[in-house]
Amino acid sequence: MTYNVQIKVMPLKELLDPQGKAVMGGLKNLGIHSVEDVRVGKHVTLQIEAASETEAKQIADETARRLLANAVMEFYEIEMIN
Amino acid sequence: MTYNVQIKVMPLKELLDPQGKAVMGGLKNLGIHSVEDVRVGKHVTLQIEAASETEAKQIADETARRLLANAVMEFYEIEMIN
Repeated sequence: MTYNVQIKVMPLKELLDPQGKAVMGGLKNLGIHSVEDVRVGKHVTLQIEAASETEAKQIADETARRLLANAVMEFYEIEMIN
Repeated sequence: MTYNVQIKVMPLKELLDPQGKAVMGGLKNLGIHSVEDVRVGKHVTLQIEAASETEAKQIADETARRLLANAVMEFYEIEMIN
């Protein structure tokens, strides 16, 4: 069966997020002042062929851990869509 | 009140996604063959100070439209967290 999985990869809360800071700057320039904090990460959607949801989740976890997220600077969250 | 909002910005389905293709290549190199498709976009979390949820959503929409997403190549989805 094909499973749709989404993985969110975000910078760790303790670390600076230069891309988020840049968006904050852009918002000020546009006159939008009510945004207090911005953090920017990656959003990855995967289509995984697996025998079960557990197996699909396991493959997504391996993908995130070995390829998508740098554990020193980022954390990830996996969510099954269907 | 402070609202937490997340915005997902993804490449349009009709378009090539070179970053996704690169991840697919990486997966093959790692011996993970059960992933059939990958698309990579941005995940942005905002903290918005607003009087109501409707206002917060409106600000998030303006942020996405004017700053985060390029409508020619990307679409976005807004989700309120709290």
